Amino acid sequence: MKHFTAGALNEYCRKVMEAKGIDPECAAAVADMLIDADLTGVSTHGVSRLSIYMERVEKGLVAKGNEIRVLKESPSALAIDGGNTLGAMSASFAMERCIEKARETGACFATVKNSNHFGAAAFYTKKAAAAGMIGFCCTNLTAKIAPFGSSEPFMGTDPVCVAVPSEGMPVVLDMAPSVVALGKLILAQKLGQSIPEGWALDKDGRPTTDPAEGRKGSLVPIGGPKGSGIAMIVELLAGVLSGAGTATHLHDLYEFDAPQGVGHFMGAIDISHFIDVDVFRSGVSATSAEVKGLKKATGFNEILMPGERELRFAAERAEKGLDIPDEVCDELAALGAPYGLELKEA
Amino acid sequence: MKHFTAGALNEYCRKVMEAKGIDPECAAAVADMLIDADLTGVSTHGVSRLSIYMERVEKGLVAKGNEIRVLKESPSALAIDGGNTLGAMSASFAMERCIEKARETGACFATVKNSNHFGAAAFYTKKAAAAGMIGFCCTNLTAKIAPFGSSEPFMGTDPVCVAVPSEGMPVVLDMAPSVVALGKLILAQKLGQSIPEGWALDKDGRPTTDPAEGRKGSLVPIGGPKGSGIAMIVELLAGVLSGAGTATHLHDLYEFDAPQGVGHFMGAIDISHFIDVDVFRSGVSATSAEVKGLKKATGFNEILMPGERELRFAAERAEKGLDIPDEVCDELAALGAPYGLELKEA
Repeated sequence: MKHFTAGALNEYCRKVMEAKGIDPECAAAVADMLIDADLTGVSTHGVSRLSIYMERVEKGLVAKGNEIRVLKESPSALAIDGGNTLGAMSASFAMERCIEKARETGACFATVKNSNHFGAAAFYTKKAAAAGMIGFCCTNLTAKIAPFGSSEPFMGTDPVCVAVPSEGMPVVLDMAPSVVALGKLILAQKLGQSIPEGWALDKDGRPTTDPAEGRKGSLVPIGGPKGSGIAMIVELLAGVLSGAGTATHLHDLYEFDAPQGVGHFMGAIDISHFIDVDVFRSGVSATSAEVKGLKKATGFNEILMPGERELRFAAERAEKGLDIPDEVCDELAALGAPYGLELKEA
Repeated sequence: MKHFTAGALNEYCRKVMEAKGIDPECAAAVADMLIDADLTGVSTHGVSRLSIYMERVEKGLVAKGNEIRVLKESPSALAIDGGNTLGAMSASFAMERCIEKARETGACFATVKNSNHFGAAAFYTKKAAAAGMIGFCCTNLTAKIAPFGSSEPFMGTDPVCVAVPSEGMPVVLDMAPSVVALGKLILAQKLGQSIPEGWALDKDGRPTTDPAEGRKGSLVPIGGPKGSGIAMIVELLAGVLSGAGTATHLHDLYEFDAPQGVGHFMGAIDISHFIDVDVFRSGVSATSAEVKGLKKATGFNEILMPGERELRFAAERAEKGLDIPDEVCDELAALGAPYGLELKEA
């Protein structure tokens, strides 16, 4: 583990991207998203992703510049072509425009097509919450979940995220519609362990406890037809409404055959158009206090609101700094070395 | 069982309500919703609810008139006070205004407070789909689900519903965030059966297979913290943003202590502001065709899109008529008898 301040790590990532010829605004959007993910403890979506993002840029599979174009614009709607720009840039642009427009009209939603992996969805919805709005965001990804009744993956582990402001930290629900992430199967297979029934189906759609069979099959959605339905709706919003296409037509982040082509759907709802923002904030905080005062279930010391654990981590790490595993530091250092950039602990 | 045409049953329900002094527009909204629920096979939300709705009206717990007031209006936002009007009327009004406004701006969302049980959420989102829009709707209900980590119910079995138009039938996801509805526990208890682990927790938050213990405890959300988080977000949107209050502050449909005071949150997103509607419709139909062509899981003969089973039922019953159980017919007949209204099979 090496220790960094969030600011120093952010600056290093930005400088690496700029050295590689990436547009400074795009570099800043990606660095901000990666560092936010690490701060919240979602390290699978943090700086450990910089090297794959850069590999795709170098292979010409992701644009270096800001190629975003607004295709259609109405007072409360934006249809955006990401132009294969880095995902964090396209998604940040879309959410920031939604926030501006929702301030005027009360609500605004945007689609983005021809986009790339955008990292952690919560990064975008929290922008809305910080502006006193409710943020909504989802994206599609390559096919990993079979529709209820099928044994073939069709929908991605498409995250759905909503952020709601309070008097203190926002309430942030950021969930994939599968019981577990694919990473848990990969890890179990690496460790030679079996997986609990209920995580994955084999290629014939039967429950399996063998992670290798699960990887050949599909991930189980939460609540059977319910989680399957959530993933399907995301495909229709982020995939069909955007014009991006559904999951089976997308390309994987870790394969180098073509641009990913993923789609996003997101938006902001301005609270002040419905109710006094302070009344709303105190209502959310009061709800949170009521929830914390409920009887705890056996085995629980505390009841947490959605996203609370992650936001507490983030507050602590923003102050004390972050620890990054040596393997990730080596990768980061290798990215900057050719340009004389040095990754320094701080 | 007695057999009726949808039209005749609708007319009878409307006449009963009008005879009881209910505003004709409110009566029509409720009748349309009830018949739609029966057509789709969701008979728990169909004409079997008319008697409890009427009992509440007669006890003065629900208004007879249309008492809806728009508190705040922006191009893409509406804050509505239902004024204790029948739920189907307030929710229909809110969705219809959202559709009108979304046609101009691209998207519009509405909150409703001081409302009542609105029946099946799909009735409202399908109005948007019929107008070439994506419909979204949720409501809160009295507390039945404990937040993840707690053993006390706090959130309702708050339905979340999205409808998306296609070339044929819309895709309609209408789901409660609990694994099963409370009705399944009530039925199991009546039949002296145990329930599978995973449906309910006892009053200490421990899994139980005893339906009586489950009824004293809480319903299990799908996917643990995920379903719990979905229900919490609905409480914040339908309860706090609307000003209605969260589930524990609401009153039950079957208790006569006070108006229910439930809140709704709903909206419409106009596809034509994002993409050509015909391109979208054919994209959804193509997605549905792809899904149906996937390999079936063991034990499945067909892969259904969300809501497909219900919409097929509805198409068939709209043509052939509906069968209503004798007990429900007796209740309906008793409601009309004092006014000389006769429930005739057709």
